[in-house]
Amino acid sequence: MKWERKHLLTLQELNPEEIELILDTASSFLEVLQRPIRKVPTLRGKTVVNLFFEPSTRTRISFELAEKRLSIDTVNFTPGSSSVLKGETLLDTVKNIESMKIDAVVIRHSSPGIPHFLAKNISASVINAGDGAHEHPTQGLLDIFTIREKKKRIKGLRVTIVGDIRFSRVARSNIWGLTKLGAEVRLVSPPTLFPPYIEKLGVKCFYSLEEGIKDADVIMALRLQRERQNESYIPSIREYRKFYGITLDRLKWAKEDVIIMHPGPINRGIELDPEVADSPYSVILEQVTNGVAVRMAILYLLLGGES
Amino acid sequence: MKWERKHLLTLQELNPEEIELILDTASSFLEVLQRPIRKVPTLRGKTVVNLFFEPSTRTRISFELAEKRLSIDTVNFTPGSSSVLKGETLLDTVKNIESMKIDAVVIRHSSPGIPHFLAKNISASVINAGDGAHEHPTQGLLDIFTIREKKKRIKGLRVTIVGDIRFSRVARSNIWGLTKLGAEVRLVSPPTLFPPYIEKLGVKCFYSLEEGIKDADVIMALRLQRERQNESYIPSIREYRKFYGITLDRLKWAKEDVIIMHPGPINRGIELDPEVADSPYSVILEQVTNGVAVRMAILYLLLGGES
Amino acid sequence: MKWERKHLLTLQELNPEEIELILDTASSFLEVLQRPIRKVPTLRGKTVVNLFFEPSTRTRISFELAEKRLSIDTVNFTPGSSSVLKGETLLDTVKNIESMKIDAVVIRHSSPGIPHFLAKNISASVINAGDGAHEHPTQGLLDIFTIREKKKRIKGLRVTIVGDIRFSRVARSNIWGLTKLGAEVRLVSPPTLFPPYIEKLGVKCFYSLEEGIKDADVIMALRLQRERQNESYIPSIREYRKFYGITLDRLKWAKEDVIIMHPGPINRGIELDPEVADSPYSVILEQVTNGVAVRMAILYLLLGGES
Repeated sequence: MKWERKHLLTLQELNPEEIELILDTASSFLEVLQRPIRKVPTLRGKTVVNLFFEPSTRTRISFELAEKRLSIDTVNFTPGSSSVLKGETLLDTVKNIESMKIDAVVIRHSSPGIPHFLAKNISASVINAGDGAHEHPTQGLLDIFTIREKKKRIKGLRVTIVGDIRFSRVARSNIWGLTKLGAEVRLVSPPTLFPPYIEKLGVKCFYSLEEGIKDADVIMALRLQRERQNESYIPSIREYRKFYGITLDRLKWAKEDVIIMHPGPINRGIELDPEVADSPYSVILEQVTNGVAVRMAILYLLLGGES
Repeated sequence: MKWERKHLLTLQELNPEEIELILDTASSFLEVLQRPIRKVPTLRGKTVVNLFFEPSTRTRISFELAEKRLSIDTVNFTPGSSSVLKGETLLDTVKNIESMKIDAVVIRHSSPGIPHFLAKNISASVINAGDGAHEHPTQGLLDIFTIREKKKRIKGLRVTIVGDIRFSRVARSNIWGLTKLGAEVRLVSPPTLFPPYIEKLGVKCFYSLEEGIKDADVIMALRLQRERQNESYIPSIREYRKFYGITLDRLKWAKEDVIIMHPGPINRGIELDPEVADSPYSVILEQVTNGVAVRMAILYLLLGGES
Repeated sequence: MKWERKHLLTLQELNPEEIELILDTASSFLEVLQRPIRKVPTLRGKTVVNLFFEPSTRTRISFELAEKRLSIDTVNFTPGSSSVLKGETLLDTVKNIESMKIDAVVIRHSSPGIPHFLAKNISASVINAGDGAHEHPTQGLLDIFTIREKKKRIKGLRVTIVGDIRFSRVARSNIWGLTKLGAEVRLVSPPTLFPPYIEKLGVKCFYSLEEGIKDADVIMALRLQRERQNESYIPSIREYRKFYGITLDRLKWAKEDVIIMHPGPINRGIELDPEVADSPYSVILEQVTNGVAVRMAILYLLLGGES
């Protein structure tokens, strides 16, 4: 199979073969990351601009490292000190940057659909690094890659996503990707944090943690965004923890070899107990390592490293 | 002709041959920007520090890309998180950075003359990236380069600069450069936005847009800095737009093959109508591309890439 | 002698041979900094993350330049726009970054002991770039290197450190390093700015500047942190200057060939008169140059450049 797309905008639009190609490519870059010299000249002379309109530690650094290890020249753009403040439209800002002859834009923005809008209007490749509550495809891909590394397959696995589904772009990308590859995806959340019509994506919804994680191969805890509490989506953080917090004790409901995932940053003691986060079940730090490999794979496929 | 200067501080001090040498050198770097691998090893091992005391998107990124494409090592310095806040003098800050053995400082500062002051006091090359309302020589050079690319000459062209002349370092650098190369430079502005004695620079001044852009080969619209309104330089933005906004309709006063330029960021619907900014007359995005080539040329000439 | 340590946390823990090895290695990198091409491929493919939780100009840029000149890939992390704000623990933040397969973390933090804590918990090398009022070992090493360059020895020299000893990590690192190498270290400070039990480190304490700098080979002035005044450690800045400010006149108390040092940024006219800072006695800018060489040496030794 040959990669044909110019952009990476969502997991919704990818077909299973495309997802598998990304995962297979990431496997070989994961091997590069184990070497003493973790750098290949593959994309030397290419330029990528990282446009993060929302704050980010791990995703921005992960992209920047992926770029540098492919020998890409990287420019970071922090809108705080920029002409976005001077009343310029986002499209003008991005078309300007594109005119400096760059190959790709990695964009994170609080508005869903911004990456699509840019992809339609500029000629550089666009990589969605998170758009509002819509999708975060590279996170979805690194999660799926991690599951495949640990379980050697995706098809037929029971993956339970627990937490703030409503506002989670991570959940959405995982749902699209995992169901395409044949996993059974279950969601566990208080009723207020379920988005409407989510069952239409082919998932099963539970209000009870015990029912939802029964016989799960994978539990993916989502970050509880504490500011939600003010908006009355949950009665209190204590209440949330009481019903939905993942504790060592509750893991017995899942399969014996269950793995625990989290996209980070973790609220220890809220959605995940420290004993779980640091347990042998946890693959959270492996997710982070795999993230660099998956992002290298995506940059490689989009920027035509093969030619 | 051989380049002799160590700094690029103003267009005022350059002679026509020096300007032509920069433009000719930029032409060959523009060709590099069209290649799949947009990078040359010319200035490998050189170090440039970008010191932007005023916020900037396009100029800072343009310099950073120019540097990286010449294989220069680049360090960005944001005074916000710095010892400038700790009461250190600017000269001490810069002399310290210079002592780390760097080759050039690119500096933007709100005070006119800061780049000259540094050039007299440090041994690294100084490139002025905008000093108050004084000059912005790399912008002037990229504008002149763009005109030469489109019109194949500068001499004898009628170039009309429209807008906030008083506070525009871009206008000042263009006036110096264009008149040296034999263009007829016209300025159009409300009376309050003309600086005193500007005619002494060999330009013609107009309050009427129609008279000023009559038979123009080039119209360069300046950004209206909206905060001016509060300072009572203009009655209102609506009033400004009514008399000085460039609309498709008003282009008929200029030559048929007029080109429209703008240094960005654009206030769409104020100094420039969207229909004009996106029209075939507009060369605004080409200015941005050319900016990288011009800055590569300047770095190349100043840092002795020939040796 | 072969370098064995994985981290650089303090000068307290280094033995004299280790300090000498760093200084000798720095000498050869100082030579690299004098070349037209100030870059070596030694650590190509290695990755270092600079984590500055406190603002910094010179130290951050000095490390970044040291890294780039060794061909290390560098990522800067500014906690302001990060998940540290999202309630993640520092250890989780750093373990995440480490999981991206990096070789070293350069960390500055306001809490003493943070670098040790990280060194115990992560597998990457940790370099302390200043932890509270505890230590700033690379500053101490560059100061000692500079003294050795100028005086050709350390043993037997009289080095007087003047100023805010209590809050100075720079003073602490210098005291450890200089006494290990056989210098006589004297401290001069108002009584309120002496930390308790400081004599136990093998130094002599003076309240009188004249007595303290008598026959000094080296005077190291510390930065007066102006906010101290509000905390009533000193009666007023004027009073401080009157008794402890280094003036040209007062240099006559020291040896004729005394050298003046300061870690920067200088408060001109407070702890150091401008006439002193800019005099031939001053080696302040050489300290800055040497800082890059010393940091290159440390990175080289820690990251196994020899293999």
